[in-house]
Amino acid sequence: MSDKNLNKTPRTRVKRNHTRGVYDRERAYEVLDSGYIAHIGYVVDGQPFVTPTFYWREGDHVYWHGSAASRMLKRQSEGIPVCLTVSHIDGLVLARSAFHHSVNYRSVMLVGEAFKVTGAAEKTEKLKTFLDGMTPGRWDSIRPMTSQELKATTVLGMEIDEGSAKIRDGGPIDDEEDYDLPIWAGVAPMEMRMGAFIPDERQHADAPKPPKLGGPFAAMKRFK
Amino acid sequence: MSDKNLNKTPRTRVKRNHTRGVYDRERAYEVLDSGYIAHIGYVVDGQPFVTPTFYWREGDHVYWHGSAASRMLKRQSEGIPVCLTVSHIDGLVLARSAFHHSVNYRSVMLVGEAFKVTGAAEKTEKLKTFLDGMTPGRWDSIRPMTSQELKATTVLGMEIDEGSAKIRDGGPIDDEEDYDLPIWAGVAPMEMRMGAFIPDERQHADAPKPPKLGGPFAAMKRFK
Repeated sequence: MSDKNLNKTPRTRVKRNHTRGVYDRERAYEVLDSGYIAHIGYVVDGQPFVTPTFYWREGDHVYWHGSAASRMLKRQSEGIPVCLTVSHIDGLVLARSAFHHSVNYRSVMLVGEAFKVTGAAEKTEKLKTFLDGMTPGRWDSIRPMTSQELKATTVLGMEIDEGSAKIRDGGPIDDEEDYDLPIWAGVAPMEMRMGAFIPDERQHADAPKPPKLGGPFAAMKRFK
Repeated sequence: MSDKNLNKTPRTRVKRNHTRGVYDRERAYEVLDSGYIAHIGYVVDGQPFVTPTFYWREGDHVYWHGSAASRMLKRQSEGIPVCLTVSHIDGLVLARSAFHHSVNYRSVMLVGEAFKVTGAAEKTEKLKTFLDGMTPGRWDSIRPMTSQELKATTVLGMEIDEGSAKIRDGGPIDDEEDYDLPIWAGVAPMEMRMGAFIPDERQHADAPKPPKLGGPFAAMKRFK
């Protein structure tokens, strides 16, 4: 069984504003489960690259996927060090001085090495979890995956071990003497919203409507 | 004067789904100007780190800032290779097969080396541009920055030169024979929204309300 906490090492210990650092797996998992796109960092010839990529969590692992022809995934599956970062922006914090302006956010940074998920059955199972996390029951409602498609897809996983979460919320924290100044201060809240589904223009008339989004998106607000 | 296009090199040429690749500066700048948080990658002892950070654009440069005590900024200001990625998620694309599921997005990836903005006047000017990009006129409406605060702040810049943008929009592109299947397909649109400003609980009664958000946020929808 995994430790209750993320592995806090010198390189993942939160240094700046360390009071915002969170190592509790439960809270880190909440942050991970509220997102769908991670920014994954990897290094080629000393140059870092940061790529936005779908991800999902299953137990104490995160997964991502892509084309088997992807140079990024080929590279990452060789066991090179990677960094997976997920962040949500919750608001701009307007303070009474420039210095104390800030942002409300929740982020998780994980470092480690990726591994390739091999075996058709395991790969299929992971992709099903991913798709059903988008819309419940999606996997069973679509045309089954062919072995050709499965072969053309690479699934990578990484153990959730070394990392940290960082959370800031609430209003501005100003210098005490600045509270007397007639300056507007507060928060401009921000959030990601999902709108009503837009059917494809070639939509089949007999297609049943998909159910509400679930899984990672359950926490998201809807817009119209 | 800078070239009309971003510098397309072997390492920034879009390989997967290359038809989504965009090198036109004007379109890349639109993507940059619609955001506020970038994910910046850098390498320490072979390990990549990806950190979400406020950024802003001025002409052919991007800037970011933070505490002068930040190890990340100290490191980055030494001229090491960095990667700055900005991405907007515009919707989930639900196709008739798992394989063709996708995401609508706009992203820009820039690689290069950062430099430190030195000189009090130039640093102040950059920070003013940043803050006024959040809310127009913000800089002049707050308590002036002290020289102490300016010293405690590091501003980094990077020339926008080598990089690429990637854009996907529209509905799913399915295999021709799958269009006959009675499977719902389409797009679940997503967007970042900003809500009504929440005043600080210690708000001064005489503080004038801030104007509408401008600059990078002008494209954002508001929620209530």
